[in-house]
Amino acid sequence: AGDTAPGGPLAARLAFLAEADQLKTVIRATLALNGARRENSAEHSWHVALYALILAEHAPAPVDPAKVITKLLLHDLVEIDAGDAPVFGNVDTAAIEVAEAAAADRLFGLLPDGEGGPLHALWCEFEANATPEARFAKSLDRFNPPNQNIAAGGGSWIEYGVTRAIFDTTVGAKIEAGAPILWQWIAPKAYAVIDRLQSERA
Amino acid sequence: AGDTAPGGPLAARLAFLAEADQLKTVIRATLALNGARRENSAEHSWHVALYALILAEHAPAPVDPAKVITKLLLHDLVEIDAGDAPVFGNVDTAAIEVAEAAAADRLFGLLPDGEGGPLHALWCEFEANATPEARFAKSLDRFNPPNQNIAAGGGSWIEYGVTRAIFDTTVGAKIEAGAPILWQWIAPKAYAVIDRLQSERA
Ligand SMILES: [Ca+2]
Repeated sequence: AGDTAPGGPLAARLAFLAEADQLKTVIRATLALNGARRENSAEHSWHVALYALILAEHAPAPVDPAKVITKLLLHDLVEIDAGDAPVFGNVDTAAIEVAEAAAADRLFGLLPDGEGGPLHALWCEFEANATPEARFAKSLDRFNPPNQNIAAGGGSWIEYGVTRAIFDTTVGAKIEAGAPILWQWIAPKAYAVIDRLQSERA
Repeated sequence: AGDTAPGGPLAARLAFLAEADQLKTVIRATLALNGARRENSAEHSWHVALYALILAEHAPAPVDPAKVITKLLLHDLVEIDAGDAPVFGNVDTAAIEVAEAAAADRLFGLLPDGEGGPLHALWCEFEANATPEARFAKSLDRFNPPNQNIAAGGGSWIEYGVTRAIFDTTVGAKIEAGAPILWQWIAPKAYAVIDRLQSERA
């Protein structure tokens, strides 16, 4: 009953959910819909959560799928304050980490005492990439854009002039760490497009 | 290893996920971002999955939160073929049910044998609204738009000339069935906006 008091826990939960709405304004480098337009971070978050549901058996070690999905639902919320840092962009990683940490403090701090903390911890676990669930979640977050880029005939790989070496370092290593079979699947297909784009630039 | 064969299960899973991308094109009646624009069904699906994560304790009976979230990730996929039927729209319910059933057959049928069936069953369970998880998921799907409409100063209630009676029947009954506390919370706030809009129309 106290739950529905004006300044009570339900009000705090809904303030958090209203703020989350803003993730729909954050535009990513990745193109959706076979290249028709850029996608926003909210629809991307839905798409990668669906990846986690459908591709769960490709995790190399048993993972709790619910934990992977929860991480992916939350993983980009910090972009509401910090913006999306394109994976191929020339960005100040340290400055972004500071901005994202402050964003996480603010956003998870909107939730009632004792509720924001566990979700904040899940976000930190995702960022640290140090548990099997985090590594699998991170690999899916990296595995989705190559699939979108291949469907778009290049997508963000064109915009950023991506080579095999750049792709391996920024994308491939993280996919392989969390889902070796998905890396084995996507690498030759991605290389074929990246090589074609490079020969067209030459 | 057979997993990564060209016509194998991983290829089928990725064909399903590529098709799911199309949900980003389905535009809903509900406005996002305090009325700035309509939202699409993919970003909406993310938002309501987040509602399930944050509001789980408001389910009247214990529910498996992972099952609620999974249902909400899947619930609108059929709109890829059948389109979004606005809740206040003057629509042919029987025709929509036929179109959505055919869409579910096609979309879940893209998955490997034995994998589409359980997800198709979860979608049917959501539609039938007959388990505690389905009722709670459905209530969140109905609870989200009033919150968006209040933030927008009316939103789809303006467009459809919604009265208290229409709101109670199409929205309130489903919220109350799955989450009585959320209905108790939102009803007076929604009525205040709906009454104001009605007096402005008069
Ligand atoms: Ca990101």
